[in-house]
Amino acid sequence: MSTWGTLFRVTTYGESHCASVGAIIDGVPPGLQLSAQDIQTQLSRRRPGQSDLTTPRDEKDLVHIQSGIEHGVTLGTPIGLLVKNEDHRPKDYTETDLYPRPSHADWTYLEKYGVKASSGGGRSSARETIGRVAGGAIAEKYLTLAHGIEIVGFVSSVGKVHLPASVAPPSLVPTDGDEDNDDVPDALSPEFIHLLATVSRATVDKEPTRCPHPETAVRMTKRIRRAQEAHDSIGGTVTCVIRGVPSGLGEPVFDRLEAQLAHAMLSIPATKAFEIGSGFRGTEVPGSAHNDAFVRKADGRLGTRTNWSGGVQGGISNGEDIYFRVGFKSPATISQPQQTAQYDGTAGELAARGRHDPCVVPRAVPIVEAMAAIVIMDQLLIQNARRATAALLPPVTTLPPTMVLSGLKQALPKEGEEQK
Amino acid sequence: MSTWGTLFRVTTYGESHCASVGAIIDGVPPGLQLSAQDIQTQLSRRRPGQSDLTTPRDEKDLVHIQSGIEHGVTLGTPIGLLVKNEDHRPKDYTETDLYPRPSHADWTYLEKYGVKASSGGGRSSARETIGRVAGGAIAEKYLTLAHGIEIVGFVSSVGKVHLPASVAPPSLVPTDGDEDNDDVPDALSPEFIHLLATVSRATVDKEPTRCPHPETAVRMTKRIRRAQEAHDSIGGTVTCVIRGVPSGLGEPVFDRLEAQLAHAMLSIPATKAFEIGSGFRGTEVPGSAHNDAFVRKADGRLGTRTNWSGGVQGGISNGEDIYFRVGFKSPATISQPQQTAQYDGTAGELAARGRHDPCVVPRAVPIVEAMAAIVIMDQLLIQNARRATAALLPPVTTLPPTMVLSGLKQALPKEGEEQK
Amino acid sequence: MSTWGTLFRVTTYGESHCASVGAIIDGVPPGLQLSAQDIQTQLSRRRPGQSDLTTPRDEKDLVHIQSGIEHGVTLGTPIGLLVKNEDHRPKDYTETDLYPRPSHADWTYLEKYGVKASSGGGRSSARETIGRVAGGAIAEKYLTLAHGIEIVGFVSSVGKVHLPASVAPPSLVPTDGDEDNDDVPDALSPEFIHLLATVSRATVDKEPTRCPHPETAVRMTKRIRRAQEAHDSIGGTVTCVIRGVPSGLGEPVFDRLEAQLAHAMLSIPATKAFEIGSGFRGTEVPGSAHNDAFVRKADGRLGTRTNWSGGVQGGISNGEDIYFRVGFKSPATISQPQQTAQYDGTAGELAARGRHDPCVVPRAVPIVEAMAAIVIMDQLLIQNARRATAALLPPVTTLPPTMVLSGLKQALPKEGEEQK
Amino acid sequence: MSTWGTLFRVTTYGESHCASVGAIIDGVPPGLQLSAQDIQTQLSRRRPGQSDLTTPRDEKDLVHIQSGIEHGVTLGTPIGLLVKNEDHRPKDYTETDLYPRPSHADWTYLEKYGVKASSGGGRSSARETIGRVAGGAIAEKYLTLAHGIEIVGFVSSVGKVHLPASVAPPSLVPTDGDEDNDDVPDALSPEFIHLLATVSRATVDKEPTRCPHPETAVRMTKRIRRAQEAHDSIGGTVTCVIRGVPSGLGEPVFDRLEAQLAHAMLSIPATKAFEIGSGFRGTEVPGSAHNDAFVRKADGRLGTRTNWSGGVQGGISNGEDIYFRVGFKSPATISQPQQTAQYDGTAGELAARGRHDPCVVPRAVPIVEAMAAIVIMDQLLIQNARRATAALLPPVTTLPPTMVLSGLKQALPKEGEEQK
Repeated sequence: MSTWGTLFRVTTYGESHCASVGAIIDGVPPGLQLSAQDIQTQLSRRRPGQSDLTTPRDEKDLVHIQSGIEHGVTLGTPIGLLVKNEDHRPKDYTETDLYPRPSHADWTYLEKYGVKASSGGGRSSARETIGRVAGGAIAEKYLTLAHGIEIVGFVSSVGKVHLPASVAPPSLVPTDGDEDNDDVPDALSPEFIHLLATVSRATVDKEPTRCPHPETAVRMTKRIRRAQEAHDSIGGTVTCVIRGVPSGLGEPVFDRLEAQLAHAMLSIPATKAFEIGSGFRGTEVPGSAHNDAFVRKADGRLGTRTNWSGGVQGGISNGEDIYFRVGFKSPATISQPQQTAQYDGTAGELAARGRHDPCVVPRAVPIVEAMAAIVIMDQLLIQNARRATAALLPPVTTLPPTMVLSGLKQALPKEGEEQK
Repeated sequence: MSTWGTLFRVTTYGESHCASVGAIIDGVPPGLQLSAQDIQTQLSRRRPGQSDLTTPRDEKDLVHIQSGIEHGVTLGTPIGLLVKNEDHRPKDYTETDLYPRPSHADWTYLEKYGVKASSGGGRSSARETIGRVAGGAIAEKYLTLAHGIEIVGFVSSVGKVHLPASVAPPSLVPTDGDEDNDDVPDALSPEFIHLLATVSRATVDKEPTRCPHPETAVRMTKRIRRAQEAHDSIGGTVTCVIRGVPSGLGEPVFDRLEAQLAHAMLSIPATKAFEIGSGFRGTEVPGSAHNDAFVRKADGRLGTRTNWSGGVQGGISNGEDIYFRVGFKSPATISQPQQTAQYDGTAGELAARGRHDPCVVPRAVPIVEAMAAIVIMDQLLIQNARRATAALLPPVTTLPPTMVLSGLKQALPKEGEEQK
Repeated sequence: MSTWGTLFRVTTYGESHCASVGAIIDGVPPGLQLSAQDIQTQLSRRRPGQSDLTTPRDEKDLVHIQSGIEHGVTLGTPIGLLVKNEDHRPKDYTETDLYPRPSHADWTYLEKYGVKASSGGGRSSARETIGRVAGGAIAEKYLTLAHGIEIVGFVSSVGKVHLPASVAPPSLVPTDGDEDNDDVPDALSPEFIHLLATVSRATVDKEPTRCPHPETAVRMTKRIRRAQEAHDSIGGTVTCVIRGVPSGLGEPVFDRLEAQLAHAMLSIPATKAFEIGSGFRGTEVPGSAHNDAFVRKADGRLGTRTNWSGGVQGGISNGEDIYFRVGFKSPATISQPQQTAQYDGTAGELAARGRHDPCVVPRAVPIVEAMAAIVIMDQLLIQNARRATAALLPPVTTLPPTMVLSGLKQALPKEGEEQK
Repeated sequence: MSTWGTLFRVTTYGESHCASVGAIIDGVPPGLQLSAQDIQTQLSRRRPGQSDLTTPRDEKDLVHIQSGIEHGVTLGTPIGLLVKNEDHRPKDYTETDLYPRPSHADWTYLEKYGVKASSGGGRSSARETIGRVAGGAIAEKYLTLAHGIEIVGFVSSVGKVHLPASVAPPSLVPTDGDEDNDDVPDALSPEFIHLLATVSRATVDKEPTRCPHPETAVRMTKRIRRAQEAHDSIGGTVTCVIRGVPSGLGEPVFDRLEAQLAHAMLSIPATKAFEIGSGFRGTEVPGSAHNDAFVRKADGRLGTRTNWSGGVQGGISNGEDIYFRVGFKSPATISQPQQTAQYDGTAGELAARGRHDPCVVPRAVPIVEAMAAIVIMDQLLIQNARRATAALLPPVTTLPPTMVLSGLKQALPKEGEEQK
């Protein structure tokens, strides 16, 4: 349904042609300094019309905060917020409405609800994601202030244009296909690990395609223009890194951290694929090469030498960089006629419609970041509940030493350390 | 946490070395004929020791139903069930316990809980999945009886050994890598679509690797033996098809059907990747080729000519076969020494341990099927709530015709049709 | 938190001094004809300034629907709605802010959140209930159209002014206190049962006190005026009847119908007590007198001769009228000085504040009705899921006859019967 | 359904005539020392056969812990547990099965599920509460160790036999019925407040009736014997106090602490009424008398001079003793013939059945305590999440002083203080 989360909850509403789209964000930590601008920044990265590569509609998308904040500080109560729709009348009837758009949500929404919005796909509209981005911006403000967590998404492929092997996520590195050879050269290269550690939103936003590798960005732009000129569309992938996540997040068994992230990412319109860490490529690397050996890090804590796991082991964050990749299919709405059938089954040609976004992947970056922030925030609250609650128990003295070699209390940062 | 679902709820308990593992299945439809054998069949497909390719432990894994059934019929109340652990004493302390096993859950469980089970990874044990398989078997019994739904998983790759392009899921078809060429030859081939439509558990179980393509199965066996002999391990992928799912399942916006499936699959131990329909490969195919055009099917209902979407559009099932692929990383536990560090950071060599499963993918098949059944059952209950509730409203006469061309009431099957 | 419900979900936001208060209503059945007026009617019954017995503030409280409806018909997607606050600036600081108001939420909100809204009690404001009333109005529209369900609340006591024994709920009937005498004369009198069966909102609204017994209403008015003149406040009880609820609602074991109703009612500000059916008085009546014997009703179905149970048995509705009573404490905010302490513990006198509602019970009536509608709607959806799902199973033939004497399929109304 | 809680979750299964009843307790803090005996103590207080006032069946009710504990310490993973049923065959068919028992769950269970357990009421069986008592015992162990919280329930009335006014909860104090007199003499008497502060389980268990006032206990015993001899039954009330609860628990708006407690209590079989603090009686006391003025307590913290509120204000605990009262109706199962109707509507006489518990209230005491512990534990975890999360934020310097006079960080106890 339209609510995400256990303790940090995002509930959204709104279609394309109604008065507004918006959200209620419940469970926001009290005492957080938060302004509309904190939210607006990500909303503006999401909205159309940022370059001539995307749809030319110029939506203003100004956020209006309704509640939950006084004097610039959160009260701990729900934050209501909304963004007005410019065009909030139901669409007029046209002949194209006789056709469910192929691979769009028109037909399935009608099958599910029995009525459908004039815009066809109802809540499958990209405008629905505004509430998510707003919720994510709030989560992110906390995560940055309290933990220095950084979340950066970028475009890792458009069509067949991929990042070069040296800086690509493992699955985008070409394989030799030799089943007797265990190597996967270049996968998890040091350059890729370095990219994960350093990539910033500023770097990413330098290119309209949001690909941090300029040379590849040029080829992606070219690929998108080719789709645009062909009245066609093209998909791509977004890779996202989350830096600075404390160890211990994720709730086995059903709410392992990668399961929550996968759920969140595949709830974004047009997504069809998710992988974390080495992902599908990791299925080809033998355990002896794939295992991330432990080392003592500079700060004295355990870490891993490699990071095939993508920062999550046993469904729980291990403190290393979390990285994952999300696949967005090519947009269903294209500006060329399609041979298909009407709702009543009559075969025919669905006429070309107006101009559309030939590639949504660059605009999807802030949405991926937002859902990542929402997941981490919710999991952090749950783990904090466990830690803070267990910390009040008297020490256990009856356990064999190996059961408490490390542990909760030791892992609890000193008050002073955490307050920055 | 350890509960899945909204109306059909599976709650599991149990580690490797406790008295039993088990589950409570709540929300089971009343009046369903159900026996222990219905559950045992899938449990036996999951358990180790089925062939010499898997771990030689011979667990019996007999299910004991505690409640919720009388005279072989479900009461609609929770079904408690358990499977006893053969070895239910905490493990003895050994020197290897000084080391968190690389890429295993030992360290993250300790970071999360502050104490850890003697077995190390606690609930990350494969035995936890017994409760899921039992819950899935109950869901599946309903889905088969009421809707004729069939769920069949199979091994689509082991290491670099993939199904041949003609019968492989799109992402396993090699690409030409030519970014100026929009074609992806062989992806979504008619043979693959035919395989999805016809593959059965009987066929799958003919091979110990659970790959329905005998020639590939031979190569997979060879690949697993090579890992076994090298005291190493290897991963792989499971592809699963769900046939006969009614249209309308999935709850936008956050609980789109693919999001639920991704969550369920990535909650299984050792999973790192998920894709539905054309998945990652679909990001490379232009919209004009990727869109699934509508056609009137033999039964008079709308369907799609192709099925790049994998049976889900706009987050909602469209009645076509649902297929998806899950990536399992190579098992972390290997029978060779590893250079790593102890909990306290001391570098050292973790000695080789006993014999282990070099490849878990064949045994993962019934777990994937179980989670798929649980997701579909829960979503079906929710959509049935909407359908049955909306069906009691007086007909709406004020809507423009295109808003109700098809719809809920018309879509409701006649009583007789659905009862087989 | 701020979300109610499993399938019919009401999420609210808003304090006294923010831009607006509002709600998102998710899970609304699609195809329901719904207008702003359907919601406004109950909002207007809730708002202050309806008579000189209540606070003289004249809030307009006009609802603005944001989404989920087109052409006057629900889409099945979330309905966002809001009501603007007239005064949406944080309050200025005054010396009274040094004092937490006794028995108000000022101190506990500060203890919980660490910061507090300028209005003190934050979400404990009565304005928060606007979102509930709106959600309830939507639920009620469905319940009326699909099932002819009627929900009517009325004031059954103000201070010590009670309805006369002949028409009072059992607990308001004076007891003889004779512990050797099992009788409780007049409790559950035929007049009371008749009142439950016939009372309407029109009757209730004839009196500003919303007591349907004119003579008692006069005494209640007098009692409220006495509180008003003494710069004091007084509490009271609301009794509510729900007519026409189908049998089978309520989800054992934790979500028994009375448990859900109690939860919903005690979530309303200022409530401290709940009883259903014979309630506390029923604890004094022996089982032989208290048991509701079964009879065949005029429509051929089983019913009960008496209704001590209040329409719920075993936690499940039995088709009889559901009635319950809710106790509202005397309002904490009074217009006279109070001896108390400041936040820092300094003893002192909290000065009198402006005019306040001396008795909120009449205005609480639509809030009680709204929460009742929300509970019934959610439970109806869940039970419809079970019924519709179980109805698709093949008939069970192996059960002893007494296990299926009646039952789900037989209980399913014919299509035509239910569609009015 | 059969799961309670957000972070501390109790899921139960089991009917009267199945193999076992049990529960899975999820979200238990790791590192808690816990033995079967901790659970058994409360189970034994719940089971029948403790005195000749209760049913003579001698159930052993030994708990078997399945998981989640090693070396006597919780792992933080789910604790599975079960208690075997002595008689686990479905009952034989008898002629009385033609009749739904009046005011029992037989008919409503059949209406709801369409099939019914051989025992009739299915999960409405008192044996279902075993899982709750076990879950409550685990919660209580934590609450005692970490916070010194004490939960004590006692019988406050049986039929018309009440505690004397001086030690009775407000609603059990007789009223003068004079609507022009604002006084309610004796309500909230110092003796009652003293009783709340001092009553212990040891005192309560001295009397088979579990009434801590010996003289009243004698009259209660007499009343129960009279019901027993008349082959009849009688109800009563349980009052419960929770001492030592930290301020700040309860989640507005829908999950106010009293709403959660009411939900929990009315989920217990045979309950029909709930009030907290002054409850229904509080509706008759003017605000000026009912308001709990603040005072600085001996420990320097704010407290209240009186406690009409019952320890909860604005839906949030304020640190004072929480007390509430639960009404249990007279048991439906009686050993005398009843004039009623069969399932098919035929009027007739339901013959007397065997011996039954004439009054369940004494045995209900540990169940009330268990549900109270479960509610507090879950709310504590949620508030700890908020506190621990907010505590990591940088201090807010921009708020008006009255918004942060007290607050979260100040309220956080020093590490040392809380660890006892």
